[in-house]
Amino acid sequence: MADKRQTKARLVKGFRDILPQPACQREKAMRTLQDVFQLFGYQSIDTPTLEYTDVLLSKSAGETEKQIFRFEDAGGRDVAMRFDLTVPFARFLAMHRHEVGLPFRRYHIGKAWRGENPQKGRYREFYQCDFDIVGSHNIQADLDVLLVAQAALRSLGVQKFKIHINHRRLLKDLLSHWNLEAQYLPVLGILDKIHKVGKEKTQSELATILPNHADLLWRFVQPQGNSEQALQHLQTLFEEQRVDTPALGDLKQIFEQLNALGLGGFYLLDPCITRGLDYYTGIVFETFLEDMSEIGSVCSGGRYDNLVGLYSNEEISGIGGSVGLDRLLAALEEIQGALPQISAADVVLIYAQDMQSQRRLQLALQARGIKVACFPDDKKLDQQFRYAQSLGARVGVFYKEKEGFILRDLASRENIPAADVGAAILHIRKMIHG
Amino acid sequence: MADKRQTKARLVKGFRDILPQPACQREKAMRTLQDVFQLFGYQSIDTPTLEYTDVLLSKSAGETEKQIFRFEDAGGRDVAMRFDLTVPFARFLAMHRHEVGLPFRRYHIGKAWRGENPQKGRYREFYQCDFDIVGSHNIQADLDVLLVAQAALRSLGVQKFKIHINHRRLLKDLLSHWNLEAQYLPVLGILDKIHKVGKEKTQSELATILPNHADLLWRFVQPQGNSEQALQHLQTLFEEQRVDTPALGDLKQIFEQLNALGLGGFYLLDPCITRGLDYYTGIVFETFLEDMSEIGSVCSGGRYDNLVGLYSNEEISGIGGSVGLDRLLAALEEIQGALPQISAADVVLIYAQDMQSQRRLQLALQARGIKVACFPDDKKLDQQFRYAQSLGARVGVFYKEKEGFILRDLASRENIPAADVGAAILHIRKMIHG
Repeated sequence: MADKRQTKARLVKGFRDILPQPACQREKAMRTLQDVFQLFGYQSIDTPTLEYTDVLLSKSAGETEKQIFRFEDAGGRDVAMRFDLTVPFARFLAMHRHEVGLPFRRYHIGKAWRGENPQKGRYREFYQCDFDIVGSHNIQADLDVLLVAQAALRSLGVQKFKIHINHRRLLKDLLSHWNLEAQYLPVLGILDKIHKVGKEKTQSELATILPNHADLLWRFVQPQGNSEQALQHLQTLFEEQRVDTPALGDLKQIFEQLNALGLGGFYLLDPCITRGLDYYTGIVFETFLEDMSEIGSVCSGGRYDNLVGLYSNEEISGIGGSVGLDRLLAALEEIQGALPQISAADVVLIYAQDMQSQRRLQLALQARGIKVACFPDDKKLDQQFRYAQSLGARVGVFYKEKEGFILRDLASRENIPAADVGAAILHIRKMIHG
Repeated sequence: MADKRQTKARLVKGFRDILPQPACQREKAMRTLQDVFQLFGYQSIDTPTLEYTDVLLSKSAGETEKQIFRFEDAGGRDVAMRFDLTVPFARFLAMHRHEVGLPFRRYHIGKAWRGENPQKGRYREFYQCDFDIVGSHNIQADLDVLLVAQAALRSLGVQKFKIHINHRRLLKDLLSHWNLEAQYLPVLGILDKIHKVGKEKTQSELATILPNHADLLWRFVQPQGNSEQALQHLQTLFEEQRVDTPALGDLKQIFEQLNALGLGGFYLLDPCITRGLDYYTGIVFETFLEDMSEIGSVCSGGRYDNLVGLYSNEEISGIGGSVGLDRLLAALEEIQGALPQISAADVVLIYAQDMQSQRRLQLALQARGIKVACFPDDKKLDQQFRYAQSLGARVGVFYKEKEGFILRDLASRENIPAADVGAAILHIRKMIHG
């Protein structure tokens, strides 16, 4: 019978707990990302969870407004929980641009919140792992972000992926040349859904809004094998149409440099990539896993012309990307069956009335980076062994006054004596590292 | 003249941005804490930012209610942002106790929010770094948490600190013996403020509510030099009063084991420690920096009898602690003048039209753990050098077709030639590591 004063333990719709094993996986992945970002000179920043609603929504269309968690704080302020890390970064730059100096590379790993209808694998609270370089128009900045994206995925253990690259100016300059600038956003919208709705529907939608140019545009977005072929194809098409665009030269340079670094195989020139209706103005990219492209992009981004324009007259452009870590980890788990288990402890101290010697060994092992948990209760040995194994431990440690340490190999059930701390360390290292 | 469509970039009262250098310091400190917690077998978990308000407030007095960020979500749910990590952990355990298994060691590093009036160094959004072991009554669990607290602080580079330990049963059993149980919470409240209000006021307040026992109680909380002396003093006092309490034996055991591990010097038996009116029932502790005790405790915790009782009929007791990381980092900065600067990059690639060779060197250096940022714009050399130095870099790298790499020592302004990537790596390693 439940106590009347008890409250039912439950979660708010769209939110979830992260249990130890996935939490450790995620933490490990985040540290890997931090390491990669830092190797390229990107620096961590943090911004508040709550912002003024007008600050968050200054650039938004109505869709975002419907999804944000918005309320009045105790001081009567209209505040909301951030729905991404980009808008807060723009606000941050408008306020701290002179403190951080330009060019500025930042990464930000943090939570964001959106009141979307929860779906499988999608929650109202999620992590974003963003990296940006602002204050440079140069192609080297674009290359930098593309290199980080590739290094990040490989460091996370992903090998079979392709970063699909496009340049928004290609489409824009093509439409301008045809005096069809007004169709730029509608066409972006149609192309963005090509993988969802299929080729036929896309083709007929294009024909509706661009009756005289649909075929040409269709040629424009046709896949062409590898990046060199795609580039050649685009050059031919643009020459035919007598359209001159700097975007082609930019793409050419980027692929040349990626190839020279021996990394070309991780990238693909793909004119279908649009990044929806977002604020991008130059290079855009999305990343697909070869074994699971259906889950969508696991790392996306692009160049934007004026990030802080909503808050300041200063123009700061940049390019950035974002790793979809939750989605990526879920995909890796599905591809590999399971992510490699992270042990909670390598060694477990088996309970004894007097644990002094075991505790001394614990500290000595920890100083060598070995994880040691102590079983804190006087329970049956079987129970303690099962517990140790559930933590992923390899060794159980006893101590007996006259014999010294006894090291229990939890897999083989063999007991190995070790006279003192030094001998125990040697044996345990062998037992753990094989 | 500001554009009318512009929004003023500003922060909500009580919230702050974290700039790159402090953000990197904090991230580094958090990783150190993660490492220490893991070495003792504690596992990471995460819980949502938003919880049902009744779940968060089930155990609270009115004070918390006034301070939480509470609102109705779009689905009409009464939700609130978590104000600590302990209440969500209790809710988590009520729901996942069988999945995680007991005893369970968890750590949780995450943000919490309270609408307190902002003061110097106190914000409405802050990190908590909690570690707990639940499902054990044994003194080994208490010892475990006390060892983690000590190891955490030392790993963060703090050497001069004392973990003040008390046991709540001492006071409780003393008052019970005098038939004054009703005064337990009031006395806790008075003792908790001793450092704020001073001895005299404390003494007179005790005299008011305990007219016949104030002197004895005053003797009870008098500092006695080291822990052995304090223990002896308490034993004498309790014997005199003929009060028998298991708390004395527990404390004796704990200090014996800490001394046996050579760690006794980091701890002090201190009957003044109460941890306010919180839910603790056994050992309680607070940690003070010897060079800055006025900032209060930087790591506190204690044993609680029934954490999940508000949500479940199952009794799960445990002991836990929490590192006050923001406060600790601020204190270390003040004690040391400044925290050691973390470089954003070790090496900066100086801009060139063709950066292929420099980029190749970048990847090779990064594979060796060296942080390399690329200056992405064609700017004057002076500006690039200043930028590199502002990142904390030691080396600037040029490449010339005929000469190979030129390595600029940014401090001595010396240029060192290096024919190829291999030679450049050798030189740069020397330049960075001295």
